[in-house]
Amino acid sequence: MKSLSEINAADIHQPADVVHWEGDCNSGKLVLLDQTMLPCGLEYFICQNVKDVYDAIYRLVVRGAPAIGVAGGYGLVQACESFSNPATFLADMQRAADYLNGSRPTAVNLGWALRRVSACAQRAAANTAEPSKIRKAMLDEALAIHAEDARLCFDIGKNAVPIIMRHSGILTHCNAGALATGGIGTATAGMYLASRLGHKFRVFCDETRPLLQGSRLTAWELQRGGIDACVITDNMAAQVMKEGKVGMAVVGADRIAANGDTANKIGTYQLAIVARYHNIPFYVAAPYSTFDMTLSSGNEIPIEQRAAAEITNGFGKQTAPDDIATYSPAFDVTPAELIEGIITERGVISPVTRKNIKEHFENRS
Amino acid sequence: MKSLSEINAADIHQPADVVHWEGDCNSGKLVLLDQTMLPCGLEYFICQNVKDVYDAIYRLVVRGAPAIGVAGGYGLVQACESFSNPATFLADMQRAADYLNGSRPTAVNLGWALRRVSACAQRAAANTAEPSKIRKAMLDEALAIHAEDARLCFDIGKNAVPIIMRHSGILTHCNAGALATGGIGTATAGMYLASRLGHKFRVFCDETRPLLQGSRLTAWELQRGGIDACVITDNMAAQVMKEGKVGMAVVGADRIAANGDTANKIGTYQLAIVARYHNIPFYVAAPYSTFDMTLSSGNEIPIEQRAAAEITNGFGKQTAPDDIATYSPAFDVTPAELIEGIITERGVISPVTRKNIKEHFENRS
Repeated sequence: MKSLSEINAADIHQPADVVHWEGDCNSGKLVLLDQTMLPCGLEYFICQNVKDVYDAIYRLVVRGAPAIGVAGGYGLVQACESFSNPATFLADMQRAADYLNGSRPTAVNLGWALRRVSACAQRAAANTAEPSKIRKAMLDEALAIHAEDARLCFDIGKNAVPIIMRHSGILTHCNAGALATGGIGTATAGMYLASRLGHKFRVFCDETRPLLQGSRLTAWELQRGGIDACVITDNMAAQVMKEGKVGMAVVGADRIAANGDTANKIGTYQLAIVARYHNIPFYVAAPYSTFDMTLSSGNEIPIEQRAAAEITNGFGKQTAPDDIATYSPAFDVTPAELIEGIITERGVISPVTRKNIKEHFENRS
Repeated sequence: MKSLSEINAADIHQPADVVHWEGDCNSGKLVLLDQTMLPCGLEYFICQNVKDVYDAIYRLVVRGAPAIGVAGGYGLVQACESFSNPATFLADMQRAADYLNGSRPTAVNLGWALRRVSACAQRAAANTAEPSKIRKAMLDEALAIHAEDARLCFDIGKNAVPIIMRHSGILTHCNAGALATGGIGTATAGMYLASRLGHKFRVFCDETRPLLQGSRLTAWELQRGGIDACVITDNMAAQVMKEGKVGMAVVGADRIAANGDTANKIGTYQLAIVARYHNIPFYVAAPYSTFDMTLSSGNEIPIEQRAAAEITNGFGKQTAPDDIATYSPAFDVTPAELIEGIITERGVISPVTRKNIKEHFENRS
C-alpha cells in the first residue's frame, strides 16, 4: 500500500465524472452527469448549444460552486462554436458569457471562470483573428480551470488525511464532495485519500433538508467510492454524537469571511453547536477561492430565502397544509469560535482567527 | 374578553375531532380522524369491528400516546358488541383487549386504558350477567378516560399560559397537539388558551423528519385553530433562534424519568442543546401519566430503531441510494439540565430536579 506522499490523483477512484469536455474546440460538447436524477439513475446530459448549458446550470443538473465554475468555462467554449465571423467573435462571446452568468447569479465561481476564459480569448485575439484558434486557447483555459480545481481538492485531501485517520466515525452535512467539484471534493477529499490508504471508517451523512443533497448525493458518491456511508435525518446528529458514533465533523463552505465565520448550507451552524456541546471537533474544508477577505465577519453575508415548495412539497407529495407560512434560509453562518480548523490546499488554519487566516494566505507562494 | 380564570374548555375551538364514539353501547362505533391523510384531506375512519380498531392504531390513523389510549378504551367497547354470550363475555373481552394491546406495544397509554376498561367490566360483571349492561359500564369508563385526558390538557394549558404570553415567537417539535390527545394537546394547550386570551404570536413548527408530524399535523391543527404557524426544516431551528425569532421552545414527552430526563421524538435533544446555546428556555409539557418514577434516569430508556425506508423513501420518492445504511433512532433523551421547566396539570416543575419532581407529585391531592 502506498504512503500519503507516494499517492497521486490517479490512485483515487473518481466516484463520478461530474463534468467533462468531449471532442475538440470546433465541434466538442460539454457533458454533465445529471445530478437531478441521482440517486436513482446515472444519466449524462450532453449540451448541444449554449441554451442547454444555461438550462443545465439553472436546473441544477450540475451544482456546487466549483463544479459550476468548471462547467461554465467549458460552456463558454461551446457557445462560441457557432460564432464564425471573426469581426464579431469577441462581442458575440461576451454576450454569451453574460447570458451564462445569469443562470446562477449567486455562484461566485461561475462569473470567475467566465471572466477567466473571456480574458484568455481576448489575449488570443490580439494575435489571431481566426475563431478556431481563439477557441483552442479558450478550451485550454477551461481545461486548466478544471485541472486546477482537481488539484486544489487533492491538496485539501492530503492536509485532511491526518485528521480523518484519527477517527472511525465522521459526520458531514450537505454535499461538498466530488459531485460539487472538478475533483474529489473538499469535505470528502480527505475521506477518499484515507480510504485509499486503508483507513476504515463510517461517514454519517445528514440528509440535508430541504433539497437532500446529503442523502441523494453524498451518500451516493461515498458508496460508489467504496466508503461506508450511513444516512441520518438532520435532527439525529446530536443522538449519533451522544452515542459516541462520530469523533469529528467536516463540511464544505460557500464563503468564508476574513475572521473565519463560515457561510454554508442551512443546518451547518446547528451542527457546529451540537458538535461543540459534545466536544467533537468541527472542521471546514475549502480552497483559497472560498475566502472572501473583503468581508470582515459573517454578519455581512446576506441570508438568501428559498421557495416554500422546497419545504412543503419536497418529496413529490404535499407534506404541509395549503397556504402555510414557511421560513427557509438557504444557508447559515457558523461563527469561527465553533470551528476547530479550516483545511485548505495549503494546510490547516487552527485556531481559526483573523490573524491566522491572514498569515495563512500572506505566505502563499 | 374573558380572563384565564373565567375561561373553560367550551371556549376553546377544538381544532380537530381526533377520536369520538358515535351511538350507544350496543351498536356504537369508534370514529377516528384519519391522520394518515393529513394535511391534504379531512377524512374520518369509522371502525366497523375490532380488526378495524387494531389496524387504525397500527397504521397510525390515530397516534399520540394519549389519543391512542382514548381510542383503545372505546375500541374495547366496540370489540365487545359482538359478544352476546354472558357465560363467555369476560373471557372474550380479555382476548380482545390482548389483541388490541398488540397493535402498538410501546404505547404505554394503550395498555393502561385497556386495563382500566377491562377492570370496569369485571366490576360490572359482579352485579350483572347482561352483556349490554356491562358494555354500558365500559362505555362510561371509556368516556371518562376521554374526559380526563381533555381535562389534563386543559389544566396543562392553564399552567403554560403565563409562560407562553411572555413570548411572540415559540418553537415546537413533532406533534404534542390536539391530534395527539383527547383534548387540546400538551405542548399546544397553552398556545390555544393564550390565543383565546388575545395573545398574538407565531409558532415555528420543526417539520420533524422522518415522519413529518410537525409539518403534516402540528402546522395543520394550529392553522385550523387560528394560530400563526410557520414550518421550518429541523436544521433551521438554530438560525431561527439566532435571528431572535423565538423566545422559547416547548415540546411534549413520551416518558419522563424520576430525575427529569425526558424521552421524546428524535430531534428533541438536538433542539434543547441549540436552545441552551442561545439562552432560550426549553420547556416540556406533559401530564402526570407521562412520568415513569420507576426509572431513575433517562439512561434506562431504550432507544427504538425505525425502518430505513422512513428515511430513504419517506414520501413517495426514493431519496437515497439503493442498499445504503441508515441509522434511525425513533426518539432521544434530553437531560434534565437542558430543560427549563416541565409544565404539568398541577403546575410547573422548575428547576427540573429529582427532588422537585418528587415533591410535585407527593403533594398531589
